[in-house]
This record gives sequence, structure tokens and C-alpha cells, in this order.
Amino acid sequence: METVDLLISARWVIPVEPDAVVLEHHAVAVRGRRIVDILPASEAAQKYRAAEHHELPEHALIPGLVNAHTHAAMSLMRGIADDLPLMTWLQSHIWPTEARWVGTEFVRDGTRLAIAEMLRGGTTCFNDMYFFPEVTARVAATLGMRASIGMIVVDFPSAWARDADEYIARGIDEVFDAHKGEGLISACFAPHAPYTVSDAPLARIRNLADELDRPVHIHVHETRHEVDEHVAKHGMRPLARLDSLGLLGPNLVAVHMTQLEDDEIALLAARGASVVHCPQSNLKLASGFCPVARLLDAGINVALGTDGAASNNDLDLWDEMRTAALLAKGVAGRADALPAHAALRMATLAGARALGLGEEIGSIEVGKAADLVAVDLARIETQPVYDPVSHLVYAAGREAVSHAWIAGQAKLVDGELTQLDGREIMTNAAAWAARIAAPERA
Amino acid sequence: METVDLLISARWVIPVEPDAVVLEHHAVAVRGRRIVDILPASEAAQKYRAAEHHELPEHALIPGLVNAHTHAAMSLMRGIADDLPLMTWLQSHIWPTEARWVGTEFVRDGTRLAIAEMLRGGTTCFNDMYFFPEVTARVAATLGMRASIGMIVVDFPSAWARDADEYIARGIDEVFDAHKGEGLISACFAPHAPYTVSDAPLARIRNLADELDRPVHIHVHETRHEVDEHVAKHGMRPLARLDSLGLLGPNLVAVHMTQLEDDEIALLAARGASVVHCPQSNLKLASGFCPVARLLDAGINVALGTDGAASNNDLDLWDEMRTAALLAKGVAGRADALPAHAALRMATLAGARALGLGEEIGSIEVGKAADLVAVDLARIETQPVYDPVSHLVYAAGREAVSHAWIAGQAKLVDGELTQLDGREIMTNAAAWAARIAAPERA
Repeated sequence: METVDLLISARWVIPVEPDAVVLEHHAVAVRGRRIVDILPASEAAQKYRAAEHHELPEHALIPGLVNAHTHAAMSLMRGIADDLPLMTWLQSHIWPTEARWVGTEFVRDGTRLAIAEMLRGGTTCFNDMYFFPEVTARVAATLGMRASIGMIVVDFPSAWARDADEYIARGIDEVFDAHKGEGLISACFAPHAPYTVSDAPLARIRNLADELDRPVHIHVHETRHEVDEHVAKHGMRPLARLDSLGLLGPNLVAVHMTQLEDDEIALLAARGASVVHCPQSNLKLASGFCPVARLLDAGINVALGTDGAASNNDLDLWDEMRTAALLAKGVAGRADALPAHAALRMATLAGARALGLGEEIGSIEVGKAADLVAVDLARIETQPVYDPVSHLVYAAGREAVSHAWIAGQAKLVDGELTQLDGREIMTNAAAWAARIAAPERA
Repeated sequence: METVDLLISARWVIPVEPDAVVLEHHAVAVRGRRIVDILPASEAAQKYRAAEHHELPEHALIPGLVNAHTHAAMSLMRGIADDLPLMTWLQSHIWPTEARWVGTEFVRDGTRLAIAEMLRGGTTCFNDMYFFPEVTARVAATLGMRASIGMIVVDFPSAWARDADEYIARGIDEVFDAHKGEGLISACFAPHAPYTVSDAPLARIRNLADELDRPVHIHVHETRHEVDEHVAKHGMRPLARLDSLGLLGPNLVAVHMTQLEDDEIALLAARGASVVHCPQSNLKLASGFCPVARLLDAGINVALGTDGAASNNDLDLWDEMRTAALLAKGVAGRADALPAHAALRMATLAGARALGLGEEIGSIEVGKAADLVAVDLARIETQPVYDPVSHLVYAAGREAVSHAWIAGQAKLVDGELTQLDGREIMTNAAAWAARIAAPERA
């Protein structure tokens, strides 16, 4: 018998790569951080002696979900303002609250709340964009959460930096350099949007991204209003400007993309850029419909994001996956658009690839990191089972997630967080809300 | 001190009527089946001695949700076929399975599974349309589940009836007469759709519905294909034909309605008909978008339904409420369309009114039946709380439902069903799936 650190036997193992495969009664063997074998459970019992063995007889084991666009710390503003258009919501509610409260403590506590929610819902990696990214990175690293941390850049000053140069300098120093070589924390550039970042910093970011081989995570074409204003100001659509600055390439992670013309889809495909679809955020803010089926037909890598909990109002990538699968059909007018296996792939491997982590996570393959999630299908809501992948996408909720591992380390076991104290996190969040909602004093 | 049977004190009581009200630290007193008082919790403690008292310090208490369109027993076909257009799905998968398997046992077991799922998700009343409705009615009555049972009618024969006359006769005899005067079971006529029921039975149903004052529950304008075929065959759109037969009135419960022209919306409003919106079903089958904001602006009563679990693939009215609130904004292009309070009202009082139960259920009011649901907001996913109604619609999932009462009887307590054995129901469902999925023998 060979020894492994972790052996997980499950009723179904859904590797995502190869595509559309469901392995029944299989086991995944893990040594250290990595998957070393995938084999029938009966053979695994003969072949491996495991330090830790989980038998999950009614569960589906899948790759951990990748939330390819969020603002984790904004979880402290969950539900602070709803049912408003994007600019009213930002200018009258979010920005004033941020100006008053955002700092290292806010980001630390908001990130902890967000990571607890994400782990409970089967998300094992998130791609963040927010102020004080070095705090987000430190919290994630401490908790063993995989994260792609955005080195945020905007033209305007904030509590974190005075100008674009300082944003870039702090990002490189406190995020990229500080976590270089670490397994779980990767850095990406995160210029906020074409309408908040001017040409000079975008050009600098392009050079740095090429030099350091890092993704560039940016909101693009979120609303028609934004596109129209950009045309009035720059004489071209935002995507065209990004292309003119050399940013439209395989490193680009373009979030939202609700406004797309045929030639823009062709251009995205030709340049090899990734798109992050945030269906619930786009619906809630009435931003428009991302043409997901057309993007996929064009061969574009489309990942999935929740956006921040202040807009959406959760970090539930599970429900986001279902909404994506349903909405793609409605928008395309074709019931076969974005079928269940493709939706699961969007929420896992496509996210990994967008973040430059496609060789490391996003599928259950030998050699990849053991970022794994188990889902209990022996629940009233998911019985009977004809097809487990159908249930993952169309019937199960995040509450069915029972286990989560990141790089072989257990983060959620039988629905319980292993490192975070949920009660303390909630008390802390309530205290923030009480402060934020209190009337201002002179 | 006065005595009551049940006293529920909650952090928030959200009565739905009056609209947009949130009562903090209130209690609801119940005697027998009915709500007798709603008052501050501190006063309730002085005024009432309760046989049963629930203190829910971190919960929102709301009216039980009303699922205004489903086919409960189809839960046994959950996930049997996905990612297909409506007619392929029906003709190649659902109808052949039904022809082979649907009978009293199938409907009994499927209805039990469905009721278990609905109660766990906070649904306390459902409006059903399926074969063997007398079985559905009996199961619901036995379990103390409130239900509006469709007296189904189609032109074609089934295991249940030979022709329209027999459908109508069995419905009146075995559903309407059999449950007349019972508190929880009401009957409605349920001609399947304009394309499956011809003029003569529709005219008879209209007369009977008027005579017995019962709703008429029917699929209308679900897809454009169906409307086009109807125009080719009848020379008019389905809604026009229903109107010409006198069916378009306050008793009409028109389900789906994805294809609507301006004059049809005006006609529905003028006639006082109700619409049942099934957003996830319409998306999944790519049927089209119901113009919910325009219907509400026209003053039409719009209720909410999950459709059957074979199409959707769950009976989760909670997620349906969120999808409705999100999708209405996207379709209307207005982030203020269907705000949170309106979405909750759609899932409760509007459903009750559509089913002719508006005086009995759908809101927390003195004199109404005590159909109540408690939702635990002290969860990572719903912290912090600025606005509990925002969280009910945009952040909470069905897993946050902790308690459900129907006519004052506890059906779910601390997340546990009081009368149903979940394990037995699941084993039973799995056995059905094994039979249904097994290769046919000669």
C-alpha cells in the first residue's frame, strides 16, 4: 500500500476536465497540496493508506468554484441600498459610505465575512478588486483561502492612495512583491474601469502586466450609459480604447460586458481575452444582458463572478451559476444554450484560466492543486437523482455544500468552517452595520 | 391574562399588508386557525398566556409563500431531461414517462416529496395542475398542507380520464365535492392550455366556474411558437379566444404570459384577470420574458409560481422570488422595477388573491389564517442586516427558513418537518427513479 495524506471517495466525481464526464464511485488521492490519483473507489481502498479518509456515499465531488469577480470587503455593506440604478447607487450610497468608513479594519472584517460565506458556498478561489488589497491578501493568506488580489488603480484619491502612481506602486510593493512565490495568493492588475482610469496609467499597467505576466482585471461595458459617455468623451467605445492601448490580449479579464457588438465579440476572440459574466449584478442594476451564448460560440473563455455583496447581495456563486445557465437560454432564445456541464465549467475551469491559474486549479486532474468541494445530494431538494450535474446546476443550493478543501487543507467539514468562528464574524459584522447606519453627528 | 394557542415573537414581523411595513420586536397571537392579535412583543408578554410560545430573536416572520403554479407530482421526474426546448422536452421525455408511470402511487409519492420540499422552503400553499388530482388533494389534506387543486381538463385521454367530459365530471366529484367546506383544500378548474382544450369544454368550464365561483387555472401564451400555431389554427391569438369564450375575467389565472402585446395587457387589466409569472421555467425553456413591470404598472395582480420540478428543477419559491425581482429589472431596463417589498408581496398576497384566497391568507392580519413562516437571518449569508426585506429577497435562501405554520399548526420547527419522514421520502423517490430510468423490457 502507498500512503497519501487525503483520500476522498464519492458517489460521483465530476472532474470538469475532461469535459462532460461523471465518474461513479471514484476516489481522489491527495499528497501534500496536489492530486496524485483519480481511480475507482474500490481500487483506491486496495492501493492507498490515507492519513485522512472521507467516504461521501451520496455526494458529488467537484473542483472548488472560482469567483472571478468580487469586492470581498463590501460584504459589510450588504443590502445597504437596493433597487437603484448603478450611478445613483454608487454616488448616493456606496461612495459616501466608503469615504467615511473604508480602512484596514473595514477591509479585514469584511474580507473575513466574505471568505466565510464563500467557503460555505463551495467557492475556494476569488478574484478581488478593492481598496487596501494588501489587507485582503493577508486575510486570505492567513486563512488558507486561494485568492487573486487586484492591485487596484483609479485616477481619484482614496484613503489608500493619492494618485494612479501611488496605487500602482503600493500594489506592486504590498501585493505582488509581498506574496511572490506563495502558493495561494496571486496578484493581478485591477484598473477599475475605462471611465475611472486615464490613458497614462492604463499604458503603464499594460507594460507592467506584460513584464510580470499578470492578468488585468477591469470593469468594461457594464452599462450602455457608460459606453455612450465614453464615446462622447473619447470618440470611441471603451473596448476600442483598451485595444488602442494594447490592453486587449490574453491577460485581459473584462468584467460585465453587457454591451457588445458583433465586431467586438470577434475582436475579443481574436485577442484571446477572457470575459467575466456577473448575471445577477447585471440584472439587479438593470445594466443589460451579456450575450453569453454568442461569446461561447465565438470560442471566448467566459468565467463567472458574483460581484460584491453590496450590489448582488451575496457571494453565492452557486446561485450565480444557476442564473447564468437559465439566463443564457432566455437571452439566446435557445433552451440548449449553456447546458449544465458548460455552466459548471464556467464556474470552475474558465475562472481559473481567466486568472492565469488554469494549470493549477479549476478541474480535478492529477498534478493540479487539491481544491475540491463536496455536495450532498441526499436532500429532499435534490431527489431523485437522474443526473448529478443537472442537480448541481438546476436544483442544489449552496446549503448542500458539505466539504471544501484548498490545496489539500480542509476548510469546511460537514458544513462547519474549520478555521473561522461564524458567531464572532457575525457579531463583528453587526457592530459595523450599527456604526455605519447610525446618524452622523456634527 | 388572555389565553391563546400560539404566540410567536420575532425580531421583525413583515405583514405584507399594509404594504412595505416592517414591525420590530413584535408578536403574533393565534387562537385555533386564526391570527387574533399583532402587537409589540413586550405587550404580548403582559397580555397573553400561550399554550405554545416561540421566541425568534433573530428571525423575520412573514406570511407563508404561495406557489401559484406547479405540478407537484412531477418532482419524481426532477432532472430527467434538461437543456431542451418545450415541445421536445414534452414529446420525447415527459409525456412518454407519464404515459408509462403516472397513476395513483406515482402521484401520491411525488406529491409527498413535493410537499416536503415546499414546506422546507417556506411555501405553505400551492396551486396544482396534474392528473389524479384527487390523490394530490388527499395527500395535502392528510398532511395539513394548504392547496388549490386543479380539476385538470385536456382533450386527449390519459390514465385518469377518457375525454373532456370525464375529466370535468371526475374533477367536480372527486375534488370539488369531496373537499367542499374543508379549510385547507380548495378546488379550481385547470384546463391545461388553449392548444390542448377545445371550445366546447372551455365553454362548459366557464359556466361551471361562474356557477361555483372557482378560479380557472390555465397555461396561456407560454411560447411564441404556441401563439403562432394557435393563430394559424384558430385565426386569433389564444388570449383573444379565451376572451371570446367569456373566460377572461377575475377568475382567470393565466400562467406564463411571455408573449403579450400592449392591447392584451390592457385587456387583462380591464377584465381583472391574474397572471402567474414563472421566471425560472420561462428562462430554462427559453420561452420568453414575461413583462412583469408593465403588468404591475397596468394594475394587474401578478403571482409567482415555480412550475413543476421536472422543468425548473425545484419547487423553490424563494429563489423564484429573487429571480423575479432581478429579471424584472433586466427586462424593464429599470433598476427600480419590482423592488424587494413588491417581490415579497407577489410571492404571498398576490398568489392568495389569484387563487381566490385573498381574504384567508397571504398577509399577517388579524382574522386571517395563521399561515406563517420564520426566516433566520443570523447566518453568515445574511449579515449584517440593514433591511430585513432586502435580505429576504436578495440574500437569503430557502435554507434560512426555520419554521412554518399552516392554519396555526406547526409543519416545520427548527428546520425539521413535523409530520414527514424525510429519509423515507427520499428512499421512495430513489426507488421510483430506478424504475423509471431502467431500460424497458419487451
